[in-house]
Amino acid sequence: MESTKKYNILVGQSGGPTAVINASLYGVIAEGMRHNEQIEIVYGMINGIEGFLDGKCMELSRELSLGEIELLKYTPAAYLGSCRYKLPEDENDAVYTRLFQMLEEKNIGAVLYIGGNDSMDTVSKLSRLAEKRNSPIRFLGVPKTVDNDLMYTDHTPGYASATKYVATTVREICLDSSVYHQRSVTIVELMGRHAGWITAASVLARKYGEDNPRLIYLPEWAFDMEQFAADVEEAFLHTNNLIVCVSEGIKDKDGVFICEYGDGTIGTDTFGHKMLTGCGKVLENFVKERFGVKVRSVEVNVSQRCSSVIASQTDIDEAAMSGAFAVRAAMEGETGKMAAFKRLSDTPYQITCELVDVDAICNLEKTFPMEWITENGTNIGEEFLNYVRPLIQGEPLRRYQDGLPVYVYRKR
Amino acid sequence: MESTKKYNILVGQSGGPTAVINASLYGVIAEGMRHNEQIEIVYGMINGIEGFLDGKCMELSRELSLGEIELLKYTPAAYLGSCRYKLPEDENDAVYTRLFQMLEEKNIGAVLYIGGNDSMDTVSKLSRLAEKRNSPIRFLGVPKTVDNDLMYTDHTPGYASATKYVATTVREICLDSSVYHQRSVTIVELMGRHAGWITAASVLARKYGEDNPRLIYLPEWAFDMEQFAADVEEAFLHTNNLIVCVSEGIKDKDGVFICEYGDGTIGTDTFGHKMLTGCGKVLENFVKERFGVKVRSVEVNVSQRCSSVIASQTDIDEAAMSGAFAVRAAMEGETGKMAAFKRLSDTPYQITCELVDVDAICNLEKTFPMEWITENGTNIGEEFLNYVRPLIQGEPLRRYQDGLPVYVYRKR
Repeated sequence: MESTKKYNILVGQSGGPTAVINASLYGVIAEGMRHNEQIEIVYGMINGIEGFLDGKCMELSRELSLGEIELLKYTPAAYLGSCRYKLPEDENDAVYTRLFQMLEEKNIGAVLYIGGNDSMDTVSKLSRLAEKRNSPIRFLGVPKTVDNDLMYTDHTPGYASATKYVATTVREICLDSSVYHQRSVTIVELMGRHAGWITAASVLARKYGEDNPRLIYLPEWAFDMEQFAADVEEAFLHTNNLIVCVSEGIKDKDGVFICEYGDGTIGTDTFGHKMLTGCGKVLENFVKERFGVKVRSVEVNVSQRCSSVIASQTDIDEAAMSGAFAVRAAMEGETGKMAAFKRLSDTPYQITCELVDVDAICNLEKTFPMEWITENGTNIGEEFLNYVRPLIQGEPLRRYQDGLPVYVYRKR
Repeated sequence: MESTKKYNILVGQSGGPTAVINASLYGVIAEGMRHNEQIEIVYGMINGIEGFLDGKCMELSRELSLGEIELLKYTPAAYLGSCRYKLPEDENDAVYTRLFQMLEEKNIGAVLYIGGNDSMDTVSKLSRLAEKRNSPIRFLGVPKTVDNDLMYTDHTPGYASATKYVATTVREICLDSSVYHQRSVTIVELMGRHAGWITAASVLARKYGEDNPRLIYLPEWAFDMEQFAADVEEAFLHTNNLIVCVSEGIKDKDGVFICEYGDGTIGTDTFGHKMLTGCGKVLENFVKERFGVKVRSVEVNVSQRCSSVIASQTDIDEAAMSGAFAVRAAMEGETGKMAAFKRLSDTPYQITCELVDVDAICNLEKTFPMEWITENGTNIGEEFLNYVRPLIQGEPLRRYQDGLPVYVYRKR
């Protein structure tokens, strides 16, 4: 591929959906189309690298109308479909030869892969292999994860919208719980297997300092049942309607997940991650037995990651920005890098994009800073509020039809 | 109380919260203040009739600013607090003498009670007792329930916002479920112990006729596990990512709740209602064992009733209208009645308020019409769509501060 010759780019989505993974896709498509002097077609792989290997692919820049491309910014989940496919460790596996052949046949100059930790592993493998094979194809990562657990980036696109959803929903649940004067406990179980970023956001639900949720537990802090009972006891001195927010992945000092204290089914996904369920239920039963009060547990579930109705406009804009930035980086010859955010200041909030090596990122996890956890593991400090508040600003002006939000769907 | 003398009115909220129970409260306060030639103060009982008996009361028209009264329209849950208090059956119980004394001391001319079925029972008892005691105090009901199960009203305030929340959320869950190409089933458990109104609304989530959710089960239709397995089998012919929406209260032909097939804890609330949990989990395990596919269950939980971020503006307006209508009815000397909605036409959608006897309403339940359930209990007919679509129109322009919705809170 000569630098004067036009080439095509290929974009894919991988891992779990978020509210803004399609905003990143929008950024890639829009930036690709803006550079039509160099880039001919923006291809999209259907169901990630796995689907592409099966020959599933579409011409995004030609098949979508401009209106549909615009609407991607406000459509949750993964427009192109996703996969949880792990490339083989053996570099000589036939799958690689086939993949590079397919890319060459389509005159792909750059592959943009939107995803989380595991997707960055894919970008890392392929960029290193391209070098070994003397292939000019560039591989760039665009970050995406509600978990906010990628290293070397201030935050990840998707996290802010999850945060805004959680803060809003917990604030509503606090109101819902406050209507009866009888003593009650509501356990709200939030996402977060290993990192407490999402659960920490429940602190935003408070309208004043001592308000609910009064107890917030993250997986980073060793959870202790007896200490929890003491915390609940103490909280009842201040409120009759106690809200407790917990990460699904809270564990004790020996590393045993609290959900394993119950009879919750535990499985593992294709990456060997433990699949958790039910620490909320375990705590519900514990409080019921110990205190004899009205208790309920609420699992906020998938809407945390896939609801776009409570999305952050800042998140949408930044997701699009990171997608566009990755395209420009690829055009400048970069490969094996991820578009990261660097914060320049909190007030006024300013960030810029920069490139970081995917090798440095993949298979690492950025957990919640221990020094931001306060009051013996039950509260979140002011530093986090300064960090997170700028991210949730702005409400998108959504398109509604017949009372429901309008999204763009892929023809199947 | 002479008709020329000024009097006060008293408003209370009872039963579970909704997105618009405070909009009804707004209607009562605003209408009361508009008639200041006759009505001196709009009092609010804190925690319903139970709290009022304990002396908990506030002067709404004096303690709240106009801005706060306006903000009530957009604040979910029950601003005044609620109760689940059942008045004694014995008319000679001392509680009644005390209650009427307290009302007379405060120069109350009319009591407006915002609530569901059980609250209308309270209105019925008190209005009949007032008559027997030759008390001039009028008792009027303002309907409220997400369940839409009150008789003699086209629908109930609160239902439309729950519906809009469910339709939007299920549409997002459908997108979330569609990202992987591997066969999967998502069971979405929605509110509805005996009436399928809320769950039926999941049909609105479809963007085209054959779309997900492909299977919808209401409590009105006898659920059969083997038929369900056959339905799932058939659905897999059309989609790889099946979404099944079920009411929490689905039961078999013998009246046994499906959640009782599992090990879900069952309790009863103070009115003797069975408290259900977990038919979604039961179906999840059933599908997993029978089909060996990826299955998850999502319990949409309390946000259905308490989220105001996806509220229907039509619902908000109508809730306010019914509150105001009840105040005017009370001023005209009506008692023992509820403000009901009568639909004049579907297109254009037009409703009017009318009065119905609370005696006729309380302790009855309006279930989902059997003739609107189609395809052997798995789908919802067009008649329902015509009924429900007008109700979910309009999105409130919310006030946001620092990225989160602004609500009005009662000082405690």
